[in-house]
Amino acid sequence: MNKFYGIGVGVGDSSMLTLKAIDTLKKLDVVILPEAKIGEGSTAYTIASKYLKENVARVFLEFTMAKNEETRKISREKNTTIIEEYLKDGKNVGFLTIGDPMVYSTYSYILQHLNEKYTVETVCGIPTFIDMASMLNIPLTLGNESLKIISLNKNIDIEKEIKNSDNIVFMKVSRNFNELKRALETTNNMNNIVMVSNCGKENQKIYWDIEDIQEEDVEYFTTLILKTRGISEWKKFSL
Amino acid sequence: MNKFYGIGVGVGDSSMLTLKAIDTLKKLDVVILPEAKIGEGSTAYTIASKYLKENVARVFLEFTMAKNEETRKISREKNTTIIEEYLKDGKNVGFLTIGDPMVYSTYSYILQHLNEKYTVETVCGIPTFIDMASMLNIPLTLGNESLKIISLNKNIDIEKEIKNSDNIVFMKVSRNFNELKRALETTNNMNNIVMVSNCGKENQKIYWDIEDIQEEDVEYFTTLILKTRGISEWKKFSL
Repeated sequence: MNKFYGIGVGVGDSSMLTLKAIDTLKKLDVVILPEAKIGEGSTAYTIASKYLKENVARVFLEFTMAKNEETRKISREKNTTIIEEYLKDGKNVGFLTIGDPMVYSTYSYILQHLNEKYTVETVCGIPTFIDMASMLNIPLTLGNESLKIISLNKNIDIEKEIKNSDNIVFMKVSRNFNELKRALETTNNMNNIVMVSNCGKENQKIYWDIEDIQEEDVEYFTTLILKTRGISEWKKFSL
Repeated sequence: MNKFYGIGVGVGDSSMLTLKAIDTLKKLDVVILPEAKIGEGSTAYTIASKYLKENVARVFLEFTMAKNEETRKISREKNTTIIEEYLKDGKNVGFLTIGDPMVYSTYSYILQHLNEKYTVETVCGIPTFIDMASMLNIPLTLGNESLKIISLNKNIDIEKEIKNSDNIVFMKVSRNFNELKRALETTNNMNNIVMVSNCGKENQKIYWDIEDIQEEDVEYFTTLILKTRGISEWKKFSL
């Protein structure tokens, strides 16, 4: 029976693909490439392309990033209908996601709208924060410590979050960088962080010190790891 | 130059290995197998073994799980010294971890004690909660939702945590299952959860309803995902 697959391709290059992801890529008749999300779609395709069938159908779908939730919903429903046409036709259809399909991915929204009569299989991938921690040799959690993943925005009480977690991954920090910096200063955590822009890409940048960084200089795909119990002991293998 | 490698092998079977993990396994002269952690060491070895060199040296090291932190520290220091002997000898030494090496792993503790004159490379793997979410077709985060990872124990104010996060992964829930269940009831979240024991293994069990489950019946490797905004809409592809 044909299926709808969500496939996480990891970050950076194809070395982060799992064996299962590769096996799944080889099965696809149709690959869905979400567009207009700051080039994310094309990066996923670049990582995956050499494992796809030569005659795979490439379907570019635009997912609007409009602020209006109803507009976004209509766009997703329209795209889901297109995907269902391929499924009705007996095709194996794959939706590629940078990182993991279950962590902040458009794929999850497609599942919401997809009729349950289709068979779905999700193939996990390495999320950015997992890739980043290993790249830097920085543990995310030890012992009984907690870890919180936050997609930064203007509505978050950052100081409160810092007080309530041992470790925090702040994603998309450019959306409220000045406030984040202020909260790190107030809670005495400026030396407990590492920040990475464009993790795994050619233009990747690593910051151990954000004192002189301004919000307007922070790129869209920037992630900051905060270890409230200190990060200095882990830097020895990263420098 | 030879290196000390931490390698995440994922959960379940070798299909969750990344290409980079496989390349790294092939380089190892020595593989460290931590013992006495409820069979975890041997599971990692089973997943990885077919990619290891035929003449790889297998070194079993006991890491005590004693409650006394000083006893554990002495055990880790002793084991680090053994690992350093192989590194001094020019060997490529690998430490295997179920899931990811930077999420609740003994490998992180070894890094703490290892002299910085050695070169370290950490190769990430799929953590249990990432594997579990895809296996169930359940998104961990959507939009601006947050996700918290908690290794459950008696010192956690579970109700407070539930109030402060949109999604929570509770790991090792057997350590305070009754209290977790009570907090889920009080906060009206009993229908917003899914629980998996021994994820990816032959004896894996999935629970959508924990009403009748008692603490003494919960196995050690049991993880619970709570989605405070509801889980029912995602169950359609999981049943």
